[in-house]
Amino acid sequence: MPETLLSPRNLAFELYEVLDAEALTQRPRFAEHSRETFDAALTTARTIAEKYFAPHNRKGDEHEPRYVDGRAELIPEVKPAVDAFLEAGFLNANRDFEVGGMQLPSVVSQACFAHFQAANAGTTAYPFLTMGAANLIESFGTDEQKRLYLQPMIEGRYFGTMALTEPHAGSSLADIRTRAEPAGDGSYRLKGNKIFISGGDHELSENIVHMVLAKLPGAPAGVKGISLFIVPKYLVAEDGGLGPRNDVLLAGLFHKMGWRGTTSTALNFGDNGQCVGYLVGQPHQGLACMFQMMNEARIGVGMGAVMLGYAGYLYSLEYARQRPQGRLPDNKDPHSPAVPIIEHTDVKRMLLAQKAYVEGAFDLGLYAARLFDDTHTAADETVRNQAQQLLDLLTPIVKSWPSAYCLKANELAIQILGGHGYTREYPVEQYYRDNRLNPIHEGTEGIQSLDLLGRKLAQNNGAGLKQLIRLIAGTCARASHHPNLDPLRQPLEQLVNRLQAVTLALLGDLAQGKVAGALANSALYLKSFGHCVIGWRWLEQAIHAEVGLLKGHDRDFYLGKLQAARYFLTWEVPPCHNDLALLEARDDTCLEMQEGWF
Amino acid sequence: MPETLLSPRNLAFELYEVLDAEALTQRPRFAEHSRETFDAALTTARTIAEKYFAPHNRKGDEHEPRYVDGRAELIPEVKPAVDAFLEAGFLNANRDFEVGGMQLPSVVSQACFAHFQAANAGTTAYPFLTMGAANLIESFGTDEQKRLYLQPMIEGRYFGTMALTEPHAGSSLADIRTRAEPAGDGSYRLKGNKIFISGGDHELSENIVHMVLAKLPGAPAGVKGISLFIVPKYLVAEDGGLGPRNDVLLAGLFHKMGWRGTTSTALNFGDNGQCVGYLVGQPHQGLACMFQMMNEARIGVGMGAVMLGYAGYLYSLEYARQRPQGRLPDNKDPHSPAVPIIEHTDVKRMLLAQKAYVEGAFDLGLYAARLFDDTHTAADETVRNQAQQLLDLLTPIVKSWPSAYCLKANELAIQILGGHGYTREYPVEQYYRDNRLNPIHEGTEGIQSLDLLGRKLAQNNGAGLKQLIRLIAGTCARASHHPNLDPLRQPLEQLVNRLQAVTLALLGDLAQGKVAGALANSALYLKSFGHCVIGWRWLEQAIHAEVGLLKGHDRDFYLGKLQAARYFLTWEVPPCHNDLALLEARDDTCLEMQEGWF
Repeated sequence: MPETLLSPRNLAFELYEVLDAEALTQRPRFAEHSRETFDAALTTARTIAEKYFAPHNRKGDEHEPRYVDGRAELIPEVKPAVDAFLEAGFLNANRDFEVGGMQLPSVVSQACFAHFQAANAGTTAYPFLTMGAANLIESFGTDEQKRLYLQPMIEGRYFGTMALTEPHAGSSLADIRTRAEPAGDGSYRLKGNKIFISGGDHELSENIVHMVLAKLPGAPAGVKGISLFIVPKYLVAEDGGLGPRNDVLLAGLFHKMGWRGTTSTALNFGDNGQCVGYLVGQPHQGLACMFQMMNEARIGVGMGAVMLGYAGYLYSLEYARQRPQGRLPDNKDPHSPAVPIIEHTDVKRMLLAQKAYVEGAFDLGLYAARLFDDTHTAADETVRNQAQQLLDLLTPIVKSWPSAYCLKANELAIQILGGHGYTREYPVEQYYRDNRLNPIHEGTEGIQSLDLLGRKLAQNNGAGLKQLIRLIAGTCARASHHPNLDPLRQPLEQLVNRLQAVTLALLGDLAQGKVAGALANSALYLKSFGHCVIGWRWLEQAIHAEVGLLKGHDRDFYLGKLQAARYFLTWEVPPCHNDLALLEARDDTCLEMQEGWF
Repeated sequence: MPETLLSPRNLAFELYEVLDAEALTQRPRFAEHSRETFDAALTTARTIAEKYFAPHNRKGDEHEPRYVDGRAELIPEVKPAVDAFLEAGFLNANRDFEVGGMQLPSVVSQACFAHFQAANAGTTAYPFLTMGAANLIESFGTDEQKRLYLQPMIEGRYFGTMALTEPHAGSSLADIRTRAEPAGDGSYRLKGNKIFISGGDHELSENIVHMVLAKLPGAPAGVKGISLFIVPKYLVAEDGGLGPRNDVLLAGLFHKMGWRGTTSTALNFGDNGQCVGYLVGQPHQGLACMFQMMNEARIGVGMGAVMLGYAGYLYSLEYARQRPQGRLPDNKDPHSPAVPIIEHTDVKRMLLAQKAYVEGAFDLGLYAARLFDDTHTAADETVRNQAQQLLDLLTPIVKSWPSAYCLKANELAIQILGGHGYTREYPVEQYYRDNRLNPIHEGTEGIQSLDLLGRKLAQNNGAGLKQLIRLIAGTCARASHHPNLDPLRQPLEQLVNRLQAVTLALLGDLAQGKVAGALANSALYLKSFGHCVIGWRWLEQAIHAEVGLLKGHDRDFYLGKLQAARYFLTWEVPPCHNDLALLEARDDTCLEMQEGWF
């Protein structure tokens, strides 16, 4: 049977050849784990994803949540799927054994989650949002808040959301207007409107815990005046019993292009002045708290984008293998049989591009998860700090690159299926529609580019960047022992050298206060930086493929890796030089464009 | 009120400054026309498009045609819209006055049609398909066929379709299996199945005339054995009266990602052995006949792609002007008011890219229509022949380039609207979904690339290519009189010079029978060739903008043109050199990829 979610061979390559996940079992936290327990978790994830998530992916798209009597109604298949996910323990995949968790390293749990993301983006969002909200309370909540809200989330009885966006402000969180007034009893009364709240209403759980950004009276203007609150859908009594409905109104649902299985809601807090909330963490520190969740969410978004791309790639690959059509261009005999379209070079191009995008981004996503493990469990503090610095730097890329290029992969999957790909009788158009959200939510591409160029690069005196440059140089040095990798290594070296120079120049401009000019072409910078990172990851994969080839087995698999690496490094990397030339010249085409000229 | 379909100022620039449509009124065929009659037709088109087509664009998407009792049921708004189109005479915009036509030049009629394409792609398809079918009968039908089928189409009583694709063969028309047996009375009995037949059933007209490709008994194998038939939905008596239903069965409807207003059908011909058809043109010459219609259709598809891009551009432009959000990066004062997002440089980038794509492609589409006029009405036979050669060469670009890049424009429009752009509460996501069909139908991107590189370039000893090179050189020579166009001209010259060398080398390979290698990277060739053509058209526009600036009025408009030209020629054109380098090297990354390696 063809694979539909991801390739287990490629997953094993990533975990056990490229990223050496087994080495983690040497660390005390993962000492009870082994490759066998990792694989068992992965197999369980795959089984549940195939059995409970994939089958209603199309139905969830066709029957999006409906607004009925102030409630959001989902199709009945969602709850059994989410329950199976909870039952198998994936909600607490990373938590301690002692609280009922699986105590898995993040690189393995992300690989588990990947199966659900590929099978059904819409349904998967509900437990994923809950995991994010739970982590936030775990990090910043009081013991009481953990008892009343975190514990039932861990048990899968309460679900969670993150409620940031407001109608007038969009991505500009500095301008939110939701207010929180102290009620005198330690709680607050919130008033304001939020939009695009995923999972903002449903009946999958006993309660929904909204993590809401709001401003306290007299708060400083801008992002320094934002606080974080727990706002439950149903009030919770001291003993943990469910109380009456809180003053949170489901004002309506948004109807999306894709990702329709996840309800996207408009929520009104405090229309009747009775919306009870509880401050999480310190006053005015809400954005910093939220950014912990946001950074996790951004990695999750990136992996989600990868997996939609991956599912589309595998589907179009199988279609291209099965579908006979036309003849090769040097065959003029109309009596000869049609060939499977995978034999047409242009179809191979579209498959190879998809493979390069999705397997490159898949590697990066798991690499980021591996870094996350290092931030928590590396023995050496320096290693932990370095991992955090590098992860901070890479987060905008982990989020944005798959969102752009695995979406492009989905576009190619449609093209391979041709007219059929454009119909809803085949799944690839849904993957495309679902994936189109990823360049938007949790920070648009534009926001990621400003985060990278305007913030992350200079953090910690550029420590993350220095590390990245060092790591890439190390990979290039190892690659240089394989002469047939020279044509792959050289474009990367050329790119990274020039990118480094451009980076220093732009940081220099920023340091001198030339902010507008330095940030004007941040989109070009994001693209080149992303291609450099993915090019590096492909060279890493190519080295491991060379090593694998020497072992003499799985020859086809490794040759495919080398060809995809070659595609990416020779077709996709060199055009970045034009972007870098524009950045070097501080090109002002866009900066100087005037509104009246459009 | 902001423009929603296209910019009248830009249209006037194209028609009366760049393409000099007024000069056509010097020709006998258009002697009774003037700028005033052209503008009157354009105004009528705009009015009808805004009044009858645009208002149900969303509804047509939400309520796609339904299969009811063997019929396709459309929403009621389609018929009044199509009737208004017919009533105003647009179906016969190019036909002679004496048969009730408007005798407009093609460059003006295409500009009229553009309004409908922008307003409602789904509804517009019905009359457009009819125009194509009518032109086919006009060119190749007998007098009797013209009387019985063409005349009622001209009168708007019968509609038409083109029925090419079969389930097993897809784009490979050589392999169609539909058979046509002589019935002994001059008519034929057809048997076969066709899919993706747009407008294949509806009740907008008294009858539907299917133009069907089928094979005669003993026909040669492959494309040389295809014949063309008229197959009416209802049989037509000698006196033109409608007879009984023909044996054409609506087997089902396809459910598409977008373009839902146009019914896409599966039709069974001759399930009961009673499907009557009439041969059009000579036996086995069907594909040549169909290609006349196909070439028109390809230009129509290109313009359709442009107009969806245009509508999205204008919508996102207006949104960006109205939506306040965030502050400029050098303003750290959270008390300052939010700015309209059009002030953010990255938003300007996305608008400028859209402008460059849609206005560049719009110019090319109208330029192609102007060439079409020359093929028919230029006084000099040499000019007519040259126009035909150039138009043949450009047709794959006119079809494929807007399909790729105006789709990309729609993707950027969504991005500018952010979360809102992803919802069906705003129109840009529908434009995107509608436009996604264009790189597929009437010949995929891959097919266009092979048509260009493997067929069109070498036609007539490369006469079309030589002309194009000469025209581009002429534009560059004129541009050189404007020193501030140097930075725009130089990238074009560099591209065209290298492209010319690559072209000769690839044609040399083809002449030596190195077919597989020469065609392997046809996608790269198509892209570079297309960018060269659009870059040329932008340099033309820039010259006219310079001329306009000297006149001292509409300064903002012309400065916008220059900035968009600069964007395209300095941001988008130079990266083509990497593609040309791959072509020069006969890169075999895709060619050598093996199926087993995926």
